[in-house]
Amino acid sequence: MNELKVTLKGRRDDSYRIHVGEGILEKAAMEIARSGIDRRCVVVTDNTVDALHGQRVQAALEKAGLRIDRFILPPGEENKTIESVVAIAACLTSLGADRQTLLVALGGGVIGDMTGFAASIYMRGIPFVQMPTTLLAQVDSSIGGKTGVDAVSGKNMLGTFHQPRAVFIDIDFLKTLPEEIFRSGLAEAIKYGAIENPALLYDIEKAASENALRNVSFLLRIIHESCRIKKGIVELDEREGGLRRILNFGHTIGHAVEAASGFVLSHGEAVAIGMTAATRLSEKLHGLPFEEGERIISAIRAVGLPCMIPADIGIDAVIAKLSLDKKSRDDVHKKDRKIINYIMISRLGKPFAHAAIDDDILRETLTGMMQ
Amino acid sequence: MNELKVTLKGRRDDSYRIHVGEGILEKAAMEIARSGIDRRCVVVTDNTVDALHGQRVQAALEKAGLRIDRFILPPGEENKTIESVVAIAACLTSLGADRQTLLVALGGGVIGDMTGFAASIYMRGIPFVQMPTTLLAQVDSSIGGKTGVDAVSGKNMLGTFHQPRAVFIDIDFLKTLPEEIFRSGLAEAIKYGAIENPALLYDIEKAASENALRNVSFLLRIIHESCRIKKGIVELDEREGGLRRILNFGHTIGHAVEAASGFVLSHGEAVAIGMTAATRLSEKLHGLPFEEGERIISAIRAVGLPCMIPADIGIDAVIAKLSLDKKSRDDVHKKDRKIINYIMISRLGKPFAHAAIDDDILRETLTGMMQ
Repeated sequence: MNELKVTLKGRRDDSYRIHVGEGILEKAAMEIARSGIDRRCVVVTDNTVDALHGQRVQAALEKAGLRIDRFILPPGEENKTIESVVAIAACLTSLGADRQTLLVALGGGVIGDMTGFAASIYMRGIPFVQMPTTLLAQVDSSIGGKTGVDAVSGKNMLGTFHQPRAVFIDIDFLKTLPEEIFRSGLAEAIKYGAIENPALLYDIEKAASENALRNVSFLLRIIHESCRIKKGIVELDEREGGLRRILNFGHTIGHAVEAASGFVLSHGEAVAIGMTAATRLSEKLHGLPFEEGERIISAIRAVGLPCMIPADIGIDAVIAKLSLDKKSRDDVHKKDRKIINYIMISRLGKPFAHAAIDDDILRETLTGMMQ
Repeated sequence: MNELKVTLKGRRDDSYRIHVGEGILEKAAMEIARSGIDRRCVVVTDNTVDALHGQRVQAALEKAGLRIDRFILPPGEENKTIESVVAIAACLTSLGADRQTLLVALGGGVIGDMTGFAASIYMRGIPFVQMPTTLLAQVDSSIGGKTGVDAVSGKNMLGTFHQPRAVFIDIDFLKTLPEEIFRSGLAEAIKYGAIENPALLYDIEKAASENALRNVSFLLRIIHESCRIKKGIVELDEREGGLRRILNFGHTIGHAVEAASGFVLSHGEAVAIGMTAATRLSEKLHGLPFEEGERIISAIRAVGLPCMIPADIGIDAVIAKLSLDKKSRDDVHKKDRKIINYIMISRLGKPFAHAAIDDDILRETLTGMMQ
């Protein structure tokens, strides 16, 4: 047997900047224009965002000398499919887009995930930037390069790691955000409080009590802090080899609850319920002091997110969905039993992965959370 | 505007080995088993290859202690679609495959491209190995990590760069290869002769004249040499930033002819016609000595590949398809005219990219090649 070795070593640099501010659209456009990328951009957005901001964003980008087309998808998680990504690619082809064309993801997490995925597979990869318009995307999903679409078999079943060239977070976009969607984003900020910086929890609870959740300085503060925490974790573990899993705090059970609700619950609501469950399990199994757990639950309640599982969702349905969660690890040595990794905390800011929680304890915890 | 920087630098190593030999299946299986990858493998293949080799490959892998499932697709370029890739992913989900599962691409270029693509997007990336069964895949497509599927708008319109963990080239598979498909693979070996090592051209022509194209020593020689040349180019330019484009010698016009024939012409036949056109254009435009051009044409003829465009394909159809070729570069500064990169040679073994060939010269050259 003859051998040849293909040597593909080297240094790589996929670093990028996150810009956070109020009314930064013009600066963002200039930044894109001078980034050395071609002057050809395609803005990918959805009908809702387009109606609110499409014209304004296009005008700002054109003013900076960029040539802009817009591609508009129907909104909603139910459209986060491979078919939508193929539609983006077909549009790019019809526009004559090539490997130098820049995609601009203008929207929430769904648009960001799909645009990033399309950018990663169109002609084997083209550049893209994130311009998140929801709080959830601004504090979490626009950073870190995870892209993907859902499949029948699960959320984000197909996707890639494809880092954006830049992230432009303009809190002006949040002014038009409906209350429920705004609140959904706070769930992820609460997550960063739970897994790294408890001060965020106090800050959020205080702002809620003062009816100041939409204040500019508060928003800039929690977005900046959430981004700072997330980027630190992504820098250490870009491809979710280990550490990055702590970002799934509340998400393992959250995804299961979201799916079991038939996606009637928003992602943020489901994550809030999932964080409540993870908090209770952390108290039972890992000695999380009750008063620290209460800081999480209290912040969730203060912003109006749910801590209880709606009565019409059965616990069996949640547990069935859990076994499909893609973060599970197939272990052939243990008779094909699925090992599910739950993120627990022993103290606020001290997360770790706990593989496989006893079914009885899980069931007991979820039962205690039924509405 | 506040800034954070996501720093994603570091060393990477995507190196891998290409194993070439006769009857190396058992060794390949042992190599996979001891590679540290999980013992769970899914072999992706097509009906044709499965009927010929599926059982034998599965048995060899199982003997090495691996747990094997097979997923079988319909054969043919017409099935190289995103739907097939989604079907692979759905199968993986139903088998409970996770990020440690290894895919084995057992087949020709179509299976290799699709399996690699599926591996690159299932759960944001799982490992795969190439086990090419056609000459074309053994000398060319199994190496270099290009994956993809065709879209209505063009060949390999969607895809990724995702390197295999290893390539196992067993020439035993070629014994069952029909003559026409075998010949198609010789086109790529001739390409390596034209762009880097003219000795390959003589070797191929001599073997053809001695009816020795299926001889073991000849096959091991041309496969090893083609792989050596390709890996050297891929090492210098993994992502087709520049140099790697020379691998498209004969492919720009070849793809257009292939598409214009409605894929009645095989890839190898189309590339043979494309290489003939590139040779003639190189003679006309870049002083390629006629006798050197003849070495290419002569090798193409010797192995029974076509040098002429079939009469039922119109030149206008070929030129129309050329403007869709994805290697083209949109240049907004030149009134949206598409610049197409053709790979030319000034001497045998001296390739370079030539942007935009005059329409009249192109038309004249293709007209001279009409059957």
